[in-house]
Amino acid sequence: MANSQIDVVVQEVGLRDGLQSIAATMPTADKKCWIDAEYAAGVRHMEVASFVPARLLPQMADADEVIAHALTYSDLTVTALVPNLKGAEKALASGVHRIVAPISVSAAHSMANVRKTPMDMIEEFRRIRELRDATRPGTVLIAGLSTVFGCTLQGDVPLADVRDVVLRSLQAGADIVALADTTGHATPGQVDRFFSALRPLSPEKLSVAHFHDTRGMALPNTMVALQHGIREFDASLAGIGGCPHAPGATGNVATEDLVFMLESLGYRTGIDVAQLLAAREIIRTVLPDASLYGALARAGLPKGYRPAHQIEKAVA
Amino acid sequence: MANSQIDVVVQEVGLRDGLQSIAATMPTADKKCWIDAEYAAGVRHMEVASFVPARLLPQMADADEVIAHALTYSDLTVTALVPNLKGAEKALASGVHRIVAPISVSAAHSMANVRKTPMDMIEEFRRIRELRDATRPGTVLIAGLSTVFGCTLQGDVPLADVRDVVLRSLQAGADIVALADTTGHATPGQVDRFFSALRPLSPEKLSVAHFHDTRGMALPNTMVALQHGIREFDASLAGIGGCPHAPGATGNVATEDLVFMLESLGYRTGIDVAQLLAAREIIRTVLPDASLYGALARAGLPKGYRPAHQIEKAVA
Repeated sequence: MANSQIDVVVQEVGLRDGLQSIAATMPTADKKCWIDAEYAAGVRHMEVASFVPARLLPQMADADEVIAHALTYSDLTVTALVPNLKGAEKALASGVHRIVAPISVSAAHSMANVRKTPMDMIEEFRRIRELRDATRPGTVLIAGLSTVFGCTLQGDVPLADVRDVVLRSLQAGADIVALADTTGHATPGQVDRFFSALRPLSPEKLSVAHFHDTRGMALPNTMVALQHGIREFDASLAGIGGCPHAPGATGNVATEDLVFMLESLGYRTGIDVAQLLAAREIIRTVLPDASLYGALARAGLPKGYRPAHQIEKAVA
Repeated sequence: MANSQIDVVVQEVGLRDGLQSIAATMPTADKKCWIDAEYAAGVRHMEVASFVPARLLPQMADADEVIAHALTYSDLTVTALVPNLKGAEKALASGVHRIVAPISVSAAHSMANVRKTPMDMIEEFRRIRELRDATRPGTVLIAGLSTVFGCTLQGDVPLADVRDVVLRSLQAGADIVALADTTGHATPGQVDRFFSALRPLSPEKLSVAHFHDTRGMALPNTMVALQHGIREFDASLAGIGGCPHAPGATGNVATEDLVFMLESLGYRTGIDVAQLLAAREIIRTVLPDASLYGALARAGLPKGYRPAHQIEKAVA
């Protein structure tokens, strides 16, 4: 599919956020098939691995090989997650286009996830930035703010805390600050309040949102984020995902449901939703015990489905 | 709960739209318990029965008794569905506050559902209006336009057809015209286009929307309808429902998910979502084979949940 006219970027994160939450390890060859299928469907942004010790997350032990495969597609933007400076060294060496370092606003989640306080993680982020500048200045550095809208460990996360971590992440050199509802707490009203308060801090850099569908609010939350000008969203094929250190958090919003909604609103994603639906079979076949989500897959596309921008001009 | 400040009406239709789609018949005593539980949760609008021949829908054979029970609550607005003049006679005699007659925009669905063409059904609607005026002029008459956004039998439903049926329903004397996505075809972009075109025909009377969650779009669709000023929505506890004459159509939007979203946006519904979640047990216990839906029930309310209007002023 032509990628020239894209209004909203949908980044597939199932290969990282999804697979890290599933006990079984997907074989490398199947990860490559998944990348191939999503690329064929038109997906041009994928977070495909994280650089964490294999003893902690064996599901990600093949990060270098998976990234090398993704990089064979010249117009695919490849992202890797790094929990610390050591991971960042490896990620930068791998040649990914973007690295994302998670910074939890909730101290309890931060300790469980990266064994650092939020402030210590911001210091680590500053060191990652220095390394990036010294070694691969072309690599985009993303601060992935997690537990922004609530935390199963801590409970409420005050907006003032989020604001503080956003400002410190910007000061530490983030090119992009992504706001993530790691645990599926966000509601549309809250997303409205938070983006109203936070986006003015840096409208260019606060440009990415990451919603989980734990309580069915991922798509309504996306609607609100769109109204605030957000134009990049993370999603997982078949809605797989969660967080190993956030009890009760179920999957990311399903990529296919998100694309279906965005296209209905006239936003061009460049992605063929029918091909995404077909790609679910890879996960179903390789990981038969994994819980798959997503409403569109239950009913299938409506008969004669066409994206809205093929019917008339964009309305949103 | 106090019902004095309501921004958005949520009408429970599970007792009609939900139960008619489930093969097993819920005993009358359990229907009364369900009404009691939702009333206790703050629900003040319920569609509790339909007046169709018991040989066609034995699930609704106890309509008079269920309605009589609902009417014992003096501030509960009770609605019944009627497919024809004969049903309307019975409904008017029962003392319900509102009767809704379904008018399918899709001719294929109309024939399957009421054995009449849409135009014949509009003539029947006119006769119902005359009967209402002559016998119980205080009863509100709703035209329930079905298959507005698509039809599993017909496929696409042109906006021009919907516009025509809306105008004819108004001419035939509808007090309210409700737009229903009977088969779960609607997308947010389509809802935006349709309401933009239709609401100006009668902003006061086109005031109700009815969404199914077949493809996960019910809540995003509700967000769009809210933007167009719609302030009454149908929903089914646990998302039960569908349509016996619309193959593949799954349930209505879950009442508890809808209330959770509306309250997060600062709209007062008067409904306690925790009590709604508890009321699901009635359906689960009495109809153990029924498919229950709803995302909120999977994860439960967030720890320390409070409706947004208890936190700060409404934002929407």
